[in-house]
Amino acid sequence: MGGDYAPGVAVEGVAAALYDFPDYEIVLVGHAAKLAFYLEKYGIADHPHLKVQHAETVVEMRDPSSIALRAKRNSSMTVCARLLKEKQVEAIVSAGHTGAAVASTKVLVRTLPGVDRPMIATNMPAQGGRFILADGGANTDCEPHHLIQFAVMGSIYAEFLYGESSPRIGLLSVGGEDIKGNKLTKEAFPILEQLPLNFVGNVEADAIFERAADVLICDGFTGNVFLKCSEGLARSTIFWLKSVFTKNMLRKTSAMFSRNAFRELKSFGDAEELGGAPLLGINGICSIGHGSSSPKSIRNAIRVAADCIKFGLNEKIVESISQTHTTTRELAAAAAAAQP
Amino acid sequence: MGGDYAPGVAVEGVAAALYDFPDYEIVLVGHAAKLAFYLEKYGIADHPHLKVQHAETVVEMRDPSSIALRAKRNSSMTVCARLLKEKQVEAIVSAGHTGAAVASTKVLVRTLPGVDRPMIATNMPAQGGRFILADGGANTDCEPHHLIQFAVMGSIYAEFLYGESSPRIGLLSVGGEDIKGNKLTKEAFPILEQLPLNFVGNVEADAIFERAADVLICDGFTGNVFLKCSEGLARSTIFWLKSVFTKNMLRKTSAMFSRNAFRELKSFGDAEELGGAPLLGINGICSIGHGSSSPKSIRNAIRVAADCIKFGLNEKIVESISQTHTTTRELAAAAAAAQP
Repeated sequence: MGGDYAPGVAVEGVAAALYDFPDYEIVLVGHAAKLAFYLEKYGIADHPHLKVQHAETVVEMRDPSSIALRAKRNSSMTVCARLLKEKQVEAIVSAGHTGAAVASTKVLVRTLPGVDRPMIATNMPAQGGRFILADGGANTDCEPHHLIQFAVMGSIYAEFLYGESSPRIGLLSVGGEDIKGNKLTKEAFPILEQLPLNFVGNVEADAIFERAADVLICDGFTGNVFLKCSEGLARSTIFWLKSVFTKNMLRKTSAMFSRNAFRELKSFGDAEELGGAPLLGINGICSIGHGSSSPKSIRNAIRVAADCIKFGLNEKIVESISQTHTTTRELAAAAAAAQP
Repeated sequence: MGGDYAPGVAVEGVAAALYDFPDYEIVLVGHAAKLAFYLEKYGIADHPHLKVQHAETVVEMRDPSSIALRAKRNSSMTVCARLLKEKQVEAIVSAGHTGAAVASTKVLVRTLPGVDRPMIATNMPAQGGRFILADGGANTDCEPHHLIQFAVMGSIYAEFLYGESSPRIGLLSVGGEDIKGNKLTKEAFPILEQLPLNFVGNVEADAIFERAADVLICDGFTGNVFLKCSEGLARSTIFWLKSVFTKNMLRKTSAMFSRNAFRELKSFGDAEELGGAPLLGINGICSIGHGSSSPKSIRNAIRVAADCIKFGLNEKIVESISQTHTTTRELAAAAAAAQP
């Protein structure tokens, strides 16, 4: 029920997923009466692999995140989280309120053993490839040991997504040198160096677009600024392209002949193929789509969520976190004590 | 002597400034023997408005910032700061090591009365206009009262740069709502609301490109990530444009006919016109250019520095800071105490 074009877009995406993946069982969570129209429209009202779970309310974009747990306990987001908690579903997909998704899954579903905070793993475009931004916005204030856990989870997610056996982990900082950064990154750096990860050191925000790392670790505030800055600049580039290519007839003609080129350019930033970013560290799979998700995005987010289950993503995270857990805590405490 | 193409580019830029602005007196600080060749080359060896001040060493990009004050006391950067301190010059311009410029001016020249930390005011492109990013990278860890001072200084700089009588001040955050942000922005928000500034609230990193504010306030770590992210994405966009426009003959031809359009597109991100970003809050004018500054950038940075002096930028900052100073400190202390 969340997202800019709900619930029509979600139902259309579910219809596509049911058609393309006959082995999936899908539960649509939302206002039953409002969903009925779209279920008819997309011809899945009586689909044997679809169940509708009624949810009375919706967490609106302007609501504070905590509302999902307090005033709106029957919101579609909270009901989803409850289904995941009760193991009635293995994964949830939402294009709604990110903060509410984080809050409700964190409190109701809880985190995986050894994980303190779930994080959003956002897949971003780079020159000739992609990289994962972690955390993309779930945790506005972080401690060093959170960044370490993001690195461990991000490494496994990159293994899943890119098929890399030893993904390169970079720490987002303001200078390539070890000595640069803020208090948080300076404390996290020496710990990251000692973990069994392919840690490549500090990575600046421009170098990552030239694929300086496969995973870029940062606190969720910085990560969200990075993400939104990229989105804003991409939209502005389209605005600027339009403004320069409509200036005179010759340019308009060139632009017309270059339509496919511009379409391809746009596709570099396209997030549709993955559909959403997973909230990693939750005891269940949780994928969060953009508020403006298309039906194709919803369908793909469902596919990626199913693939995460098949890959055993969470089992691998638990195993890896447990291997690094003691080291991480000890090193973080030592580093904090050593900080002047 | 700093920057990627030193000292040739700097000397060429100075030659242009001497030619275009006959009322300027310029001191070139650097290794006298190394400068001599370029002074001859650009025909300013005996210019009556030019003096050369010898500096034995250079702060290299890989050096830590503190080296300018310790091991390299005779570096061009430190000598510049000393000239500014001794009022032998009114402004300094450098395309060298940003951290060293911040450290040496902060320690040697000191900050303006009432200013705790100098900040970098970076002029950025937006749709149909520009905005100032403050802090662009001088302070990796900030307290709320630093952000408040950035807002006051940023407001005056926007007045200078854009001629706006009441520039809109936005706080960079992860959500438009007041309730969103990290600990730092949540503490700064209520203080900013009570100051005699045109504070427009939280601004997300994508909205700023649609000109949601004239000045975007943030800590220098986040600001630098924002800046580098934009630079990286701009370079990648050029990379992607090239890759789609060289795919076949038709596209190559279209691109050829669109050469001017692409040149215009590139100019939106061009920082040459200002040449550098001022380090505001220092007791003197200090402009920091990009390491890859062109001669034109250097010339323009000199012009902007001179304009800052004529505008009375620092006098205005001192006056405005003193008006808001008591309020700021009291409010910051109250807000910190109120934070759970």
